[in-house]
Amino acid sequence: MRRSHSAFFLDINSMAITIAVDCMGGDHGPVVTIPATLEFLRRDVGSSVILVGREEVVRPLVSSAVAEFGSRLTLRHASEMVAMDEPVASALRNKRDSSMRVCANLVKDGTADAALSAGNTGALMAISRFVLKTLPGIDRPAIAGILPTHDGHVYVLDLGANVDCQPEHLLQFGIMGSVLVSVLEHRERPSVGLLNIGEEDIKGNGIVKQAGELLRDSGINFIGNVEGNDIFKGTADIVVCDGFVGNVVLKASEGLATMIAGGLKEEFSRSLLTKLAALISMPVLKAFKQRFDHRAYNGAGLLGLNGIVFKSHGSADAYAFRCALDRAAEAARNGLTDKIVSRMAAMTASTVSATATA
Amino acid sequence: MRRSHSAFFLDINSMAITIAVDCMGGDHGPVVTIPATLEFLRRDVGSSVILVGREEVVRPLVSSAVAEFGSRLTLRHASEMVAMDEPVASALRNKRDSSMRVCANLVKDGTADAALSAGNTGALMAISRFVLKTLPGIDRPAIAGILPTHDGHVYVLDLGANVDCQPEHLLQFGIMGSVLVSVLEHRERPSVGLLNIGEEDIKGNGIVKQAGELLRDSGINFIGNVEGNDIFKGTADIVVCDGFVGNVVLKASEGLATMIAGGLKEEFSRSLLTKLAALISMPVLKAFKQRFDHRAYNGAGLLGLNGIVFKSHGSADAYAFRCALDRAAEAARNGLTDKIVSRMAAMTASTVSATATA
Repeated sequence: MRRSHSAFFLDINSMAITIAVDCMGGDHGPVVTIPATLEFLRRDVGSSVILVGREEVVRPLVSSAVAEFGSRLTLRHASEMVAMDEPVASALRNKRDSSMRVCANLVKDGTADAALSAGNTGALMAISRFVLKTLPGIDRPAIAGILPTHDGHVYVLDLGANVDCQPEHLLQFGIMGSVLVSVLEHRERPSVGLLNIGEEDIKGNGIVKQAGELLRDSGINFIGNVEGNDIFKGTADIVVCDGFVGNVVLKASEGLATMIAGGLKEEFSRSLLTKLAALISMPVLKAFKQRFDHRAYNGAGLLGLNGIVFKSHGSADAYAFRCALDRAAEAARNGLTDKIVSRMAAMTASTVSATATA
Repeated sequence: MRRSHSAFFLDINSMAITIAVDCMGGDHGPVVTIPATLEFLRRDVGSSVILVGREEVVRPLVSSAVAEFGSRLTLRHASEMVAMDEPVASALRNKRDSSMRVCANLVKDGTADAALSAGNTGALMAISRFVLKTLPGIDRPAIAGILPTHDGHVYVLDLGANVDCQPEHLLQFGIMGSVLVSVLEHRERPSVGLLNIGEEDIKGNGIVKQAGELLRDSGINFIGNVEGNDIFKGTADIVVCDGFVGNVVLKASEGLATMIAGGLKEEFSRSLLTKLAALISMPVLKAFKQRFDHRAYNGAGLLGLNGIVFKSHGSADAYAFRCALDRAAEAARNGLTDKIVSRMAAMTASTVSATATA
């Protein structure tokens, strides 16, 4: 879809919401999460944040900020933290007082409207699912992330939560993705494409074929199959795929972008002459970098849970983490969870009536 | 793997081989395939080419070249051609005298040592499989293509021939890919990685897990799981995946590269000042472009057939098509098919003896 930053920030500041922030998560922890939170609170004056983490670590870092934001910035002690490489089972069973778990609990008991963590994705999904449970009609939560396109961005789900999907799961991803985009981007009927391959006669595997039929009857704006190259063309607002394919595509794209950026840098650093060319081209290269800045797309939604949970990239810097905070706030303000529930209920009702009249 | 062009051309010209070229295939047909063939014949003096296509179209275009190359350049009339968007079934059933089919027949009857076509991939695979059949021990042929990495390139298979793979198929892909790379790159034990996702506890789906076990016991240089970002890092010489994932990754990568190149071009064209910067940076940008020039990686092998068939990208230009010809010639000179057969036989024998002594 086309960039429309104005639309994205339209409703910000209009309604009070509270976000629980996993202060300890990610590759950098409080060094990133705290500055990002303070900047977020400065810009989004209708919001509050609960910083969750080890009090002895967090309090000294925010002592001056507490005066600035008053009751909008509170701390919640959590004695443990989930390591980035910790097995999911260990995080779930042994760390009942992890910052991640406390964040999920704050959403569950209604103290927070949404949670954000840059921690271990598998653990965040498992803990969120255990604490919050899934919504009626949703078998499996999915991770919905954002990738840049030629002149905007695209939402892709699932990015790795579900490796063996049935057609019904892909249908649910399509519906949840459609609601997410309408909530975050204020669009009525965003377009949904199903990731497939284009070879004649072997068009897609059986599961994808069946998912296409279900999506066609779902009432969402389903535009049919899209191929790998359509992702970055922006052919659809949302691209649906199973978590294995989504994860591979996401990581391959990150790898390719890194390779291209590294190669460009190397070529511009070869000699005095090429360094001079780099200097002269600096404004162009900066504009180019900013245009496809992946940091602006940080903040993946864990969809299908009974509560709003967003995941920041583990390596996010303060700017990227703040972008994820913006998304979590927008989702909370616009009632993401309720809207998924009503969409699923409407679909179930229409399916039932279709069956009844059949 | 590291670039080693010298190794790639080491054996060229050392042995006489004949390639059947589908003169009519691809987006551009003879306009590309003929100049590429003539350049190939000039450089690879031990080779011959049979140009297959409509004689009334092809002969006028090569009349002067026939004098230059003598018996090394011959024509074979084929009255039909397969359209780029033609359904596979129609190409297979109704076009028995297509240039593609005649190429496959020339390989089958031993007149040619390999065939190359830039035509419809699905049709080429179906026709080749029908005419040549698969090798003993190979259930399904696979498409093995090449992608650039930070300082070399990587072979990926399958790129779309097989959408629903069993563990045994992925094992066969690993073995065939290993033989292909040892033949084309003159490497003893190239490394093979299995494409997977890294989330804890949901590491891969069941089929990929089982394939990992089979590959571990196969005797090839299997380095275990690799993730999407490893493809472009060059972590493995060969990356194995099912055709759905491979096709999506290939096309998504093409789409991303196109987006980045387009964005860079746009930023350098914004104003007189940025155009000046582009002019000054031209040598750098050219070096950069050449470094990741996908045309140099053209030429995907259709592996597992009883005969050598290579596929050129449909949009290939003469340089790209010539690169594919080089690869087909190298595979033919180094006995790709026989080597796959002996590798499969050795593996079957070792499996049998393992069972016997168990």
